[in-house]
Amino acid sequence: MKHLTKVQCAYIAGFLDGDGSIYIRLKPNKDYRFNYQVSPNIVFYQSRRNRLFLERVRKMIGAGYIRERNDGMVEYVIGDVTTMVSLLTQISPFLVFKKKQAQMFLRIVRKKAGVKTKKDFISLAEMIDKLERLNYSKKRRITSQVVVDTLKKL
Amino acid sequence: MKHLTKVQCAYIAGFLDGDGSIYIRLKPNKDYRFNYQVSPNIVFYQSRRNRLFLERVRKMIGAGYIRERNDGMVEYVIGDVTTMVSLLTQISPFLVFKKKQAQMFLRIVRKKAGVKTKKDFISLAEMIDKLERLNYSKKRRITSQVVVDTLKKL
Repeated sequence: MKHLTKVQCAYIAGFLDGDGSIYIRLKPNKDYRFNYQVSPNIVFYQSRRNRLFLERVRKMIGAGYIRERNDGMVEYVIGDVTTMVSLLTQISPFLVFKKKQAQMFLRIVRKKAGVKTKKDFISLAEMIDKLERLNYSKKRRITSQVVVDTLKKL
Repeated sequence: MKHLTKVQCAYIAGFLDGDGSIYIRLKPNKDYRFNYQVSPNIVFYQSRRNRLFLERVRKMIGAGYIRERNDGMVEYVIGDVTTMVSLLTQISPFLVFKKKQAQMFLRIVRKKAGVKTKKDFISLAEMIDKLERLNYSKKRRITSQVVVDTLKKL
């Protein structure tokens, strides 16, 4: 991604606070050691008629892709970890409302790199619970409790 | 309202571009000379659970009020003309997506102060048409054509 100016960082922080989301999902996937893929995302939302706006923000950041949903919404998605870490590190001083989420997100991503044991993975899943509570996430199925139950069977 | 720093301006611009609206409505009102009140507004939207966030932005700007709607949304509304002109003048260099709306809004508000004749008022209403086209406004009833029809009867 591009190096952002202070003004660009503040602008993106305002947009993310109002209309964006910083989240991490656990996806069942047996190819992964602990049977779950840890999938972090930063997403910006707009109605479809504002697609051009998301394209401009994408150009400003210089990473990610645009995805049209079936419900008339468009998403600008950043899924690459290096980009997400760089973006959140740059903009978090300017976040007002999602600063805690950004800091928790960065802690989780750092911790993920050092996960070795089942216990480490459960503690990572508990941090994701915390992040998703900050996000008022309601539709989540894979909580740390589900992870604990799965890992018992491994 | 408060004087904003460059970083605050950029932040608010990002938030307004993503989640705000700059609009002007014509409201039928016989107390006004041309039978319509020109009602400009800047509004920021959030779901009700994010009311606190809007409060913080309100504090940053130092003007306006918060209004809960019946549909689970909360609005931060600025309706005072002096505040709106000051805010848009400060943040418009940082707007990416709504820069045209902001400039058109400022032109309309300036023109409004000099309206003297029916012709002036119709030309003002036509500028509001343009602004609302930029806003993709669909529910508008009082267009410049409606104003023309009303003024014929005066």
